[in-house]
Amino acid sequence: MLPKKAKNIFYAQSGGVTAVINASAHAVIETARKYDCFGEVYAGRNGIVGALREQLISVSQEAETELAKLKHTPAGAFGSCRYKLKSLEENQREYKRLIEVFEAHNIGYFFYNGGGDSQDTAYKVSQLGESLDYPICCIGIPKTVDNDLPFTDNCPGFGSVAKYVAVSTREAALDVASMCESSTKVFILEVMGRHAGWIAAAAGLAQQRAGDAPHIILLPERAFDQVAFLQKVQATVEREGYCVVVVSEGTRDAQGNFLADAGMSDAFGHKQLGGVAPVIAAVIKQALGFKYHWAVADYLQRSARHIASATDVAHAYALGEKAVQLAAEGVNAVMPIVVRDQDSPYQWHLEQVPLAEVANIERKMPEHYIDEEGFGITEACRRYLQPLIQGEDYPPYENGMPVYAHLKNICVPQKLGAFELA
Amino acid sequence: MLPKKAKNIFYAQSGGVTAVINASAHAVIETARKYDCFGEVYAGRNGIVGALREQLISVSQEAETELAKLKHTPAGAFGSCRYKLKSLEENQREYKRLIEVFEAHNIGYFFYNGGGDSQDTAYKVSQLGESLDYPICCIGIPKTVDNDLPFTDNCPGFGSVAKYVAVSTREAALDVASMCESSTKVFILEVMGRHAGWIAAAAGLAQQRAGDAPHIILLPERAFDQVAFLQKVQATVEREGYCVVVVSEGTRDAQGNFLADAGMSDAFGHKQLGGVAPVIAAVIKQALGFKYHWAVADYLQRSARHIASATDVAHAYALGEKAVQLAAEGVNAVMPIVVRDQDSPYQWHLEQVPLAEVANIERKMPEHYIDEEGFGITEACRRYLQPLIQGEDYPPYENGMPVYAHLKNICVPQKLGAFELA
Repeated sequence: MLPKKAKNIFYAQSGGVTAVINASAHAVIETARKYDCFGEVYAGRNGIVGALREQLISVSQEAETELAKLKHTPAGAFGSCRYKLKSLEENQREYKRLIEVFEAHNIGYFFYNGGGDSQDTAYKVSQLGESLDYPICCIGIPKTVDNDLPFTDNCPGFGSVAKYVAVSTREAALDVASMCESSTKVFILEVMGRHAGWIAAAAGLAQQRAGDAPHIILLPERAFDQVAFLQKVQATVEREGYCVVVVSEGTRDAQGNFLADAGMSDAFGHKQLGGVAPVIAAVIKQALGFKYHWAVADYLQRSARHIASATDVAHAYALGEKAVQLAAEGVNAVMPIVVRDQDSPYQWHLEQVPLAEVANIERKMPEHYIDEEGFGITEACRRYLQPLIQGEDYPPYENGMPVYAHLKNICVPQKLGAFELA
Repeated sequence: MLPKKAKNIFYAQSGGVTAVINASAHAVIETARKYDCFGEVYAGRNGIVGALREQLISVSQEAETELAKLKHTPAGAFGSCRYKLKSLEENQREYKRLIEVFEAHNIGYFFYNGGGDSQDTAYKVSQLGESLDYPICCIGIPKTVDNDLPFTDNCPGFGSVAKYVAVSTREAALDVASMCESSTKVFILEVMGRHAGWIAAAAGLAQQRAGDAPHIILLPERAFDQVAFLQKVQATVEREGYCVVVVSEGTRDAQGNFLADAGMSDAFGHKQLGGVAPVIAAVIKQALGFKYHWAVADYLQRSARHIASATDVAHAYALGEKAVQLAAEGVNAVMPIVVRDQDSPYQWHLEQVPLAEVANIERKMPEHYIDEEGFGITEACRRYLQPLIQGEDYPPYENGMPVYAHLKNICVPQKLGAFELA
């Protein structure tokens, strides 16, 4: 009897990209080669959309030298998307299409690398075996700079943003401190974090001594208290000569309105934010008259592979590897997670949780991570964050610039007709 | 006969700080120790203002371990200032005060580390020997991220900002490219450069292949042509799927007004000052409707020592060293400069020019560095810029964070009365 033909793998990146999601991709590709049970590795062009459109990138057609660069290349090398599958009841057409594509290309394994919304999609796909009688092994691989997935110690992508924000805050604070006597008194850095303040909180790691920046961290977890805020800015400038504020893009007023609102929404219905720093600057200028400067890190923070955390890269790789190992063992509908054994020295191992429990749960900052005043982080928070930015993992450079992967992204020939997205 | 008592050195940092100005300071301190003709090294607290106020930081009271960190510490470790001495005719009082302070502390050497305005100040001080009969040897040390000093191949500080901007542009562009199918189509990065486009031009080094970002560079040297700009944005999005724009803060309209002054109003009706990126974003949104994101690098770019150019660090150190050597030779009223011998491999040596010729001359981007369309750089510009970002010079890290100098900045006891600044 001939052995059953090895099933192919479909891997896709989803949602906002990170500095280390390609490290997970790299792990999936490398690890899959070690098992006979896997055939080809296909990557979805632009995530799950690539499956629906039958745009399957043939990873084996890439040069080995370029694939090797994935581990140190930021962003999504195969393209990502913001596209959330509806429930099977609401949109059976899309699930049927997925099955058609999977069958046409002998796909038996689905790895979905993303955040909360994506793990929800992964869960739905994992149920196709039961609901639509198409057996598929589906494993979620966690990723999100927002650090808001449940169960896992942290989410790959977050540690590197945290490091970028902490380093940038320390550096900019030195700049402001050296000029404050005759120039800028208040510096405001806006960072990502729509619902949770994890990224802004990480700026707290810039502090070494009493009085160090950041002096104020504005978190989405606390309604913006303008009076208390202005008092603290004033007091800090009087005491230190300057004041550094790090503000989450998702900071809201007491009524729950975002302080900044560009008035656009993305495909998930999230409001597109950006630009709370100038709002805060205007508030300070009007009330206190201080000279200010502000910066908005935006995509720079989540793509900053040049200052990635080695711990974060290690997690991203290990979780991708573990996902493939689980699939090889025949496990379905789980997401591998990082479990912390101890803070210092940091020790961790991997486990897995059912996708059914992960989907659509958003992890907030614990209350005891925010200090009493609401403008800073506690020692407990610092102990949690510190290991996640440990270690540098520099990309190679050529001509003064980092060398990043440049894939051909050639799709395998299509076998089915076109498909219109909902 | 006893030898003449060695005269002390006064060193001061001036104007906007950089990622490498402390490397020049480090060179001055280290090199001065090698010569018997120099006594103590004093650093002005907040630049020339420290001389006027008789706030002279005693460098010898710092721990050697902290001084050694200066070479990799961004910003101005002794404080900087924006303060320009008037002419001797306009404000003799200040010059007389300088002489009093210099005499009281046996200062015979003055090193002023700054940009165009500061070299003007240095020149004025260098003339005190003749005009006020106080012999002082005065050497300027070039520094400015704006790269606008004449004669020198480039200005220390610029190469590191250039590297930061080029690396950030490459990284953010990968992010946008991976998401553009279903998300952001246009990304705008605002960088420094009030009068000259050097920093924005450096973003062009992110390009490797045809079609690479940045697709559009907006320079102060070209009036903003909205029609041509929007056409290029549209064409780029159609061709590449996305468009990356790098804009100088100093970009102006045809009437010569800064685009940033057009401003935007926030939710409170406050007019927001600063921020040409959101203005450009609004122009695109209104005319083309593309989903956009924007970033403002602000101080992050000039303090980013973590991604400093090794070439830039080498220049900063060499110029500080050369300044002291010149003083030891009895030279007065000059500024050492970098002279380029060849582009590739980059070779350079040091010379010096009279401060009288440097003061208040601003070097613009040559016309032939800007491409015909006015939205990009030429090969000649690329050949000029490329060597300046060569090499990485990472700071040491501890607990995931760069280790930067923390000086005590203890001033020597004052001998004179207080002095009110003009």
